[in-house]
Amino acid sequence: MKHPNRSDLAPFFEAQSVALIGSLREGEGEGEAYWVIHNMLQLGYRGAIYPVNPSYTQAHGIKAYPSVLEVEGPIDLAMIITPPVTVAAIVEQCARKGIRAVIVGTEGFAEASEDGARLQRELVGLARTLGVRLLGPNTIGTLNTRTNLTTNQYLIGYNGIKSGNIAYGSQTGFIGAQGQPLEDRAYPVSKMCDFGNKCDLDEADLLDYLRDDPDTDVIAIHLEGVNEGQRLMQALRRTTPDKPVVVFKTARTEPGARASASHTGSLAGKEEVYDSAFRQCGAVVVHTLQEYWDVPKIFAYQPLPRGNRLAMTTPTGGVGVMATDAAVRAGLTIAQLSDSTLEKLARLSDKLNKNPVDLGPTMVLTDQPLAVYQNSITALLEDEGVDCVTLILYAGAIGSIDETVGMVAGVRQRRSKPVTVWVYGTSMSMREEMARRFEGMGLPTYVDLETAVKAHGLAAQYARYREEVSRMAGTES
Amino acid sequence: MKHPNRSDLAPFFEAQSVALIGSLREGEGEGEAYWVIHNMLQLGYRGAIYPVNPSYTQAHGIKAYPSVLEVEGPIDLAMIITPPVTVAAIVEQCARKGIRAVIVGTEGFAEASEDGARLQRELVGLARTLGVRLLGPNTIGTLNTRTNLTTNQYLIGYNGIKSGNIAYGSQTGFIGAQGQPLEDRAYPVSKMCDFGNKCDLDEADLLDYLRDDPDTDVIAIHLEGVNEGQRLMQALRRTTPDKPVVVFKTARTEPGARASASHTGSLAGKEEVYDSAFRQCGAVVVHTLQEYWDVPKIFAYQPLPRGNRLAMTTPTGGVGVMATDAAVRAGLTIAQLSDSTLEKLARLSDKLNKNPVDLGPTMVLTDQPLAVYQNSITALLEDEGVDCVTLILYAGAIGSIDETVGMVAGVRQRRSKPVTVWVYGTSMSMREEMARRFEGMGLPTYVDLETAVKAHGLAAQYARYREEVSRMAGTES
Repeated sequence: MKHPNRSDLAPFFEAQSVALIGSLREGEGEGEAYWVIHNMLQLGYRGAIYPVNPSYTQAHGIKAYPSVLEVEGPIDLAMIITPPVTVAAIVEQCARKGIRAVIVGTEGFAEASEDGARLQRELVGLARTLGVRLLGPNTIGTLNTRTNLTTNQYLIGYNGIKSGNIAYGSQTGFIGAQGQPLEDRAYPVSKMCDFGNKCDLDEADLLDYLRDDPDTDVIAIHLEGVNEGQRLMQALRRTTPDKPVVVFKTARTEPGARASASHTGSLAGKEEVYDSAFRQCGAVVVHTLQEYWDVPKIFAYQPLPRGNRLAMTTPTGGVGVMATDAAVRAGLTIAQLSDSTLEKLARLSDKLNKNPVDLGPTMVLTDQPLAVYQNSITALLEDEGVDCVTLILYAGAIGSIDETVGMVAGVRQRRSKPVTVWVYGTSMSMREEMARRFEGMGLPTYVDLETAVKAHGLAAQYARYREEVSRMAGTES
Repeated sequence: MKHPNRSDLAPFFEAQSVALIGSLREGEGEGEAYWVIHNMLQLGYRGAIYPVNPSYTQAHGIKAYPSVLEVEGPIDLAMIITPPVTVAAIVEQCARKGIRAVIVGTEGFAEASEDGARLQRELVGLARTLGVRLLGPNTIGTLNTRTNLTTNQYLIGYNGIKSGNIAYGSQTGFIGAQGQPLEDRAYPVSKMCDFGNKCDLDEADLLDYLRDDPDTDVIAIHLEGVNEGQRLMQALRRTTPDKPVVVFKTARTEPGARASASHTGSLAGKEEVYDSAFRQCGAVVVHTLQEYWDVPKIFAYQPLPRGNRLAMTTPTGGVGVMATDAAVRAGLTIAQLSDSTLEKLARLSDKLNKNPVDLGPTMVLTDQPLAVYQNSITALLEDEGVDCVTLILYAGAIGSIDETVGMVAGVRQRRSKPVTVWVYGTSMSMREEMARRFEGMGLPTYVDLETAVKAHGLAAQYARYREEVSRMAGTES
């Protein structure tokens, strides 16, 4: 099946020219369109930028226009951040200019009041008539790390968004570059999208677009409400056989429904129905904000596992026990090491005789702790009965950060098996630095032990789904 | 009921003189007793330190003795880190010297082999005969932030352990100052204890000791195995009416049982039985390492809630929805704000009309965002229908860190209600700095949103238990 919306969605991410319509007033907390342009320039967007506001002749030294109709060149995308009552007329101008992609950043529509909801309905009707697609209202719009396009009207404040293969789509501007530690945590981002009020384009459209996006291998979606459940399920079913989709569903925004649900306790039940429906469509369901950000990394950086048998190395037994608990909870099996692996480990040290491989007691006795560590990891990766591996590492204990990172970098991996990392230690900055170094090598590194293990469980679940889908496809053909 | 073991436990934490018996060899990864003394000196222990080793005349410039029997003054506590077969004879010397408290740091006992288990049994028999109490073997022993006593044989590497009112007891050396970010995260620690193999003293003894410890208001216990369930339950029932006890139970260490449990899935069931038993004794049950460290902070810093009705402030609606989800999951009710509170909020802004209080839309419209924020928080705290409050704050958006911290510091709290904080933002170092500043003011600040909310749920559960216990006590009297 073809994706009818692809051409409609493309300009929202791939625009070569963007009009920013709204206040161009300079200064902190001032003109929203001014700050969008600021962010575009700071990230390094190289397309054409058209500030639009009849009261200004320029913004950031770029010529401003009284309306999009005065712009000579073509415009692929318009971002409108003007009061709600003014938006319809501007959309009309955009249509006359030939703009087919419009983001409405402004708040004050359906999320705010009945009047706002009416304005929003009228806007949708108008856009349909004019053949214009809308994103929003009440949104920070889109971001594309390949072209450095951003329509974010809040100060991002840094330019270090790592270009990668995870697309993050959300129903809140909170999950945007201005609110999240994208630079410090170096999430490998392809595209970001805030659906806002989802008056026209929504998560189903985004899935259809991203399914064919060559820059995106993994999709993470945050949802509050679901307007058209069937449509979303169909989009998920089309997407998940090719690309993993991580779904983080939070409660509905409608305050009455939420308050009611909180009192009656019906919320949890509803959420479980959603979770179950998402899983049936092959989605990877997560339940916390940190999981939304972190779980996609295993898919972004690592191959899928061929099963659910986990092996672990740890510098201390107590953590190995905690990791085992987490593994069981995540639906993983603690791998039974083969005789050959046990022999390899025994040659390294008579204290290495089970999984999790507790290297602590050996480390204090050997002259070559890093070599023992490295050979132990290699032995686990070579074991036919091991599908995935979690490395628990200490920042700074056995040699320097450089030595530990070098040890892991030197592991010979003959088979392609997913590996995750958890780093602990006394210094948070050393933990963060080591995490960035490992992710630079393609090893997803987690802020907590439990997620480092759970990520394997979710990947194994997804891998099983993919296998089933492909087996069924084989049966049908 | 009196606590028969108090005098037995006291020297393990309150020793004025300590003998360190073991290798005094200098250098990284060398003599364990050498490193214990290093750590004592670095933390600033002011009691008498007696290095004991017949091959040395001094360690760190402190006179060394061939045996404890040669020491002139009294010795309150001995830490033995010598090969397993040598330990019994040294314990005998300790007894002759009048030492009644001995920590056996050495590995290689019951956790390692059958021979080790036999040695351990013999050691326990000997100690009972001699009237000596043992902690360990296979332990890093104790730590006391009031006297700076530590028996840790690994390099701690910093001296910034914050003195506070949480005692952390664990069954693994991993949960020690040398492995955890106690300085960076500024956990307010009174005492720490690693039970190790628990051949003699265990978590029940520790509870009985800490119950009367004036420096400790909250107790966090990590357990792998439970040797004497009834004894532990009794100790919990004695302790929890006075002090909250947070319990983090991980799987049994016996690898066969663990492997079997992993295959059969019986582990989860067993753990639930434990959880349920702990809760019946008033314990606060947590399930992750981060919760073990972080949940006690709400009890350490804040009063108990009078109910489970939560109010929240947030700079953005999307996070409010996530916090609401977390609250419902944690057994909390979303507080219905009173008419009076709603009027107060309406006077601040017509956009402030529900809980969670979403301050975002108002912030961009007002000249005095911090005053609006502050007055909103005060209004929530004054509402009779609000039992606890979570503040969601952004590091750096509305004014500087100083301004945001100052705003919170200036909140007028007429009623004493627990408050927790979650800080988000683009910069991890700013988030960490703001968290430390808030905790300096006594506001527990969490690394994830969900725990900031869940902590209230656990505190409410504990408060209910305390009320029931005191009501039943009232009925009986």
